[in-house]
Amino acid sequence: MATAQLVVDPAFRVGTVDRRLGGSFVEHLGRCVYGGIWDPDDPAADSNGFRSDVLGLVREVQVPVVRYPGGNFVSGYRFEDGIGPPESRPSRPDLAWHSVEPNRFGTDEALGWCAAAGTEAMLAVNLGTRGAGAAADLVEYTNHPGGTYWSDRRAANGHPEPYGVKLWCLGNEMDGPWQIGHRPAADYARDALQAARAMRAIDGTIELVACGSSNSAMPSFPAWEATVLETCYDDVDYISLHSYYGRPSSRGELLAAALDMDRFIETVVATCDHVGARRRSTKRIGLSFDEWNVWHRDAEPDHEPWRQAPPMLENRYDHDDAVVVGTLVNSLIRHADRVKVACLAQLVNVIAPIVAEPGRPAWRQSIFWPYRELIRAARSDSLLVALTTPEHDVAGVGSVPVLDAAATVSEDGDELRLLIANRSPDHSVPTTLDLRAWPGYALVSHEQLADSTSRPAGAPGWPPPVAVPLPAERAGRVDVSIPRLSWNTLVARRSH
Amino acid sequence: MATAQLVVDPAFRVGTVDRRLGGSFVEHLGRCVYGGIWDPDDPAADSNGFRSDVLGLVREVQVPVVRYPGGNFVSGYRFEDGIGPPESRPSRPDLAWHSVEPNRFGTDEALGWCAAAGTEAMLAVNLGTRGAGAAADLVEYTNHPGGTYWSDRRAANGHPEPYGVKLWCLGNEMDGPWQIGHRPAADYARDALQAARAMRAIDGTIELVACGSSNSAMPSFPAWEATVLETCYDDVDYISLHSYYGRPSSRGELLAAALDMDRFIETVVATCDHVGARRRSTKRIGLSFDEWNVWHRDAEPDHEPWRQAPPMLENRYDHDDAVVVGTLVNSLIRHADRVKVACLAQLVNVIAPIVAEPGRPAWRQSIFWPYRELIRAARSDSLLVALTTPEHDVAGVGSVPVLDAAATVSEDGDELRLLIANRSPDHSVPTTLDLRAWPGYALVSHEQLADSTSRPAGAPGWPPPVAVPLPAERAGRVDVSIPRLSWNTLVARRSH
Amino acid sequence: MATAQLVVDPAFRVGTVDRRLGGSFVEHLGRCVYGGIWDPDDPAADSNGFRSDVLGLVREVQVPVVRYPGGNFVSGYRFEDGIGPPESRPSRPDLAWHSVEPNRFGTDEALGWCAAAGTEAMLAVNLGTRGAGAAADLVEYTNHPGGTYWSDRRAANGHPEPYGVKLWCLGNEMDGPWQIGHRPAADYARDALQAARAMRAIDGTIELVACGSSNSAMPSFPAWEATVLETCYDDVDYISLHSYYGRPSSRGELLAAALDMDRFIETVVATCDHVGARRRSTKRIGLSFDEWNVWHRDAEPDHEPWRQAPPMLENRYDHDDAVVVGTLVNSLIRHADRVKVACLAQLVNVIAPIVAEPGRPAWRQSIFWPYRELIRAARSDSLLVALTTPEHDVAGVGSVPVLDAAATVSEDGDELRLLIANRSPDHSVPTTLDLRAWPGYALVSHEQLADSTSRPAGAPGWPPPVAVPLPAERAGRVDVSIPRLSWNTLVARRSH
Repeated sequence: MATAQLVVDPAFRVGTVDRRLGGSFVEHLGRCVYGGIWDPDDPAADSNGFRSDVLGLVREVQVPVVRYPGGNFVSGYRFEDGIGPPESRPSRPDLAWHSVEPNRFGTDEALGWCAAAGTEAMLAVNLGTRGAGAAADLVEYTNHPGGTYWSDRRAANGHPEPYGVKLWCLGNEMDGPWQIGHRPAADYARDALQAARAMRAIDGTIELVACGSSNSAMPSFPAWEATVLETCYDDVDYISLHSYYGRPSSRGELLAAALDMDRFIETVVATCDHVGARRRSTKRIGLSFDEWNVWHRDAEPDHEPWRQAPPMLENRYDHDDAVVVGTLVNSLIRHADRVKVACLAQLVNVIAPIVAEPGRPAWRQSIFWPYRELIRAARSDSLLVALTTPEHDVAGVGSVPVLDAAATVSEDGDELRLLIANRSPDHSVPTTLDLRAWPGYALVSHEQLADSTSRPAGAPGWPPPVAVPLPAERAGRVDVSIPRLSWNTLVARRSH
Repeated sequence: MATAQLVVDPAFRVGTVDRRLGGSFVEHLGRCVYGGIWDPDDPAADSNGFRSDVLGLVREVQVPVVRYPGGNFVSGYRFEDGIGPPESRPSRPDLAWHSVEPNRFGTDEALGWCAAAGTEAMLAVNLGTRGAGAAADLVEYTNHPGGTYWSDRRAANGHPEPYGVKLWCLGNEMDGPWQIGHRPAADYARDALQAARAMRAIDGTIELVACGSSNSAMPSFPAWEATVLETCYDDVDYISLHSYYGRPSSRGELLAAALDMDRFIETVVATCDHVGARRRSTKRIGLSFDEWNVWHRDAEPDHEPWRQAPPMLENRYDHDDAVVVGTLVNSLIRHADRVKVACLAQLVNVIAPIVAEPGRPAWRQSIFWPYRELIRAARSDSLLVALTTPEHDVAGVGSVPVLDAAATVSEDGDELRLLIANRSPDHSVPTTLDLRAWPGYALVSHEQLADSTSRPAGAPGWPPPVAVPLPAERAGRVDVSIPRLSWNTLVARRSH
Repeated sequence: MATAQLVVDPAFRVGTVDRRLGGSFVEHLGRCVYGGIWDPDDPAADSNGFRSDVLGLVREVQVPVVRYPGGNFVSGYRFEDGIGPPESRPSRPDLAWHSVEPNRFGTDEALGWCAAAGTEAMLAVNLGTRGAGAAADLVEYTNHPGGTYWSDRRAANGHPEPYGVKLWCLGNEMDGPWQIGHRPAADYARDALQAARAMRAIDGTIELVACGSSNSAMPSFPAWEATVLETCYDDVDYISLHSYYGRPSSRGELLAAALDMDRFIETVVATCDHVGARRRSTKRIGLSFDEWNVWHRDAEPDHEPWRQAPPMLENRYDHDDAVVVGTLVNSLIRHADRVKVACLAQLVNVIAPIVAEPGRPAWRQSIFWPYRELIRAARSDSLLVALTTPEHDVAGVGSVPVLDAAATVSEDGDELRLLIANRSPDHSVPTTLDLRAWPGYALVSHEQLADSTSRPAGAPGWPPPVAVPLPAERAGRVDVSIPRLSWNTLVARRSH
């Protein structure tokens, strides 16, 4: 098997990894909210009805930001249905997922949950069936100090203090024909601009995300981004990207997913900078990759419509999926200079790293571990990685690099983390890590998820990466074998 | 004065420097052709009327490619006026520069001169007053084997063998209101596509350059590039950029010119990649920066119209200008992955590195030396340069890095060249070169153009960079002072 | 096998078949001109160099109109290269077919040949590399009485009398990316309008054909027609259609070709009438189907570029192809109310009914016979045909009628002709012809091309349809079996 070389040099950095790159996403879909983060009837529920075991895992991994309440759900949602005395809240048909939304869990519950989980809230406004007025009302409800209709309603509902939600999404996936309120780019751009101006009139400190394409294969991509930014460039801080990879794509295509994510990100960056130049603007638009994950759609059961929180999209992830999520994490870190927000979709039960079943402690899926690594990268600097790697041919994709890597150096410069995945189901790759530019650093750990990592019988969860023997280091070079189909974190520390 | 650090690492490369990056440009303007490269009455003229002293300097510096015959001139030019028996060639009013064009020097003379100078020809077709038909006729004249009207005319004019001109420009500066045939981007795009198809029907092996913006301040930039590429993406290989810097800009603005060139290039790259994505194309469009230089317009004398080859744009360059051209050279090398062709405008007398006066040996202007360095970079790999440098404020520009650097490693890996300019008119900068990633390399030369470099009295030319004492090297680090307002080439060689 | 019924009634007529529906097409492509209609070195050549055997076949079948000189060729053609003393005419590279065009045969030779063949000329002007000026010059050359530059040049070239060419094509296939001068519909519409006005300024009596789509699968069809007619409706008489059917399409798809031709014609009629209504115009635009035929592209040999009249597109047609052409003839006759001009592409050697080989008498291909029938239909009335026929499934097409029929009644009403083809390779169809509405008419002949029609050995040509025994007639009904894969002409005459 050909060999690989990886070189990192502290002088060559991509940029600082934003804290929010490790975010996640909670939508009123299936059992993500009801039976996921909230279930008053479950033994693990706390006084607020939050499942404490789920909170435990979220706090353990320190999720930095959670996008809420959708996703397609938001494009038909009236936030006022979900506030005030629970018994007075109406049940509504959810037009996106054809469930019945009881509205027992709403904005106050969600922001309370975020506080309990120690995570920032990223709220989406409904630009599907509503416009600037309702959007401004919601910002008034969450952020206005008091003395106005909606801020007083908040106080009356037991929350006198404004929540100060900073990060807002101007609708969801408006380019998708499946979306309630789907409309051409020029119309969405105008509506988003109006909402942005109205919301900022309430609270000038908020940051706004305009909807980009729902995936890189959309016919309207990337003309959609150009049109939206041509109108909203000066009024928004980020443009969003969404992307899911999974069966029925082939195993080879799935393992090559990060190539599409790289290209998708780089094309959106090119589009932002082209439009910025047309507008003679020195402002740089950031990217919010606020829905990304492996999502297998091949085995989805048919759903009875109009039921409350039925089990939906409850993917069970395996080792392959963990390697794929590892490569997607690498792609985000490789582009940390421009991707400032990212949300793994979703957080619990619904294509999620955490599974919460009734009466059983929540447990970690295989993808929990590479997701944790993305959160850990927060505030470190992403390093340029010079990787020479063998390639293999994948039907429908072409020639694909066998190894996928990213690297970060901690804020204080003491810790260098190398994240290396091996996409080949067949061959391990003898790899030379060239650390000559890191004198005084010693390899301290090599943790690995390999295809062979045994799962303890009985317990449903997936075990953390296994510590494997440290390879020797000679004159700044480390020769290490990266096993077939593995996800590896190698850490070097500076000895003072 | 704060210090600077420069780090280069062989693992981090921009890309290979194309041989054509060091090209130049000869236009029927002023004394560039008549009295420049061609002057049968001059003592230095050879049998073809080419000034042998000019040829000598061009061969000395090995100019790789020369764009001809324009520039604005080409947009009113009939190539057939400039071929065949000289006495039968008509004199025409040149609508671009208001001179009388005697047509004594035309396509055959130009291609003969290129052969004599050992340089490739890059021909522009007239899309100002003519279209696809005339463009195809010119390709037939220069490249068709024989047996057709124009190829037989070539043979009759004494050149039976086809010239095989590979590189062609589809018109010139069509976005400029000053240009004969100036038209909106969509119209130019269509005309360029038709010309491209007709020219390729004659010779399918030619490479084509579509006109981009005449400078980065054009109101139509970069929408012009998007529109042109939307139509021509599959039919052209390059999009062009032009840019001139000079008085009446301030000294500070001029010394900061490379910042504009960097931004201009990066915006055109973003635009190309955005359009490529819209077209779902895997093809990458290259950039042809085929007019760039310092051009001082403040002291241009009034010109009597309708004279033959009057002195025009005869800038006399000084040391400042050499430093500026040094930084522009760095900008081109820094973007060698996408800028594949570049032409210093122009080659002789007209804003040029070479001056040819009647009856006096041609001499080198100050900018000759940094231009030579660009040509030397051919086929080497441009290296990423991690430069931390003090900045100073420049009115009208903002905060500007004091140092500007580029670096290359030779094809065989033996030679590392560091090109460092100091923009500050006041302060030298103590600089640490971190060569730890280059074990076995030793600094062998440090050549410098400094403000104090004395010019020998009498001789008009500017002396080559001066060799200055080599700084010491300790454990891969070299501490060197970069003098105020200087242009430096430091070379390190691998000792076997 | 199911049976079929065919009913025709003199009261139900589509419209009169225009004389020009049986036209053909001669392009400077391969051996259509040189070695086809013109070959001064061939023993069969007359004093003008026209092959008399080819002229014989053309006169025998009385071709009514011939389109010339192209087709793609015309989009790079300068008519002045092909007039005047032959030895002074230049050879040009033909950008369309990559041959060398010697220009020995030009406008005067073509119009002379048409006179000799007793056929009308339909000339195309070059809107690829030229515009309104050159188009008007050509009309001046052919139609202006005298006393102007180009009419005097005609006289000087030995043709004092104007030719009076009535029918003109405004360019060729401008919607095709392969076409020299290809441009968006709106640009072509504007250029065609300018040419129409300039040409009519010379001769107000000419009829003009604007370019429609190159085939019904073009992405721009039928938006192209709408845009062109929106601009040119009042200034043109016809819009063109082109369509070719052949391998690599499957045998079933090829035999179903007439379904596509029907739909193509009906869509263009709908588009014309839609635009006419938008313009509140009472004028009806006619259709000129001026390139149609079977064209097998699967076995085309590679061509050395830049040769004179190399053998190209020399399809050899078989019985299947004759049945297909028979159905295409039926499609044209069925739409005789709006399709006023049609040109079988092409006339000799190049996908043609007539083959002329050096030193051998020209001979008829299989498709000659159905083409002859189309010419015979001139000036008769096309009858509505009520046909109930079994259908069979064709992969890639769907359900396809087994029988295809058309019918005409002569100008004097004495002769009824029924044209019936059987597409099924497997089944003959027992068919009842209901002639009760034609009292006093008796079946006089049934001519047939059947799969079994034997081709005499040795002679390359294909024999004419064979007379088969007349079926009995009882009380206005005729029961006849239409053999599998056959093309039939049944004629009934009124007895006085």
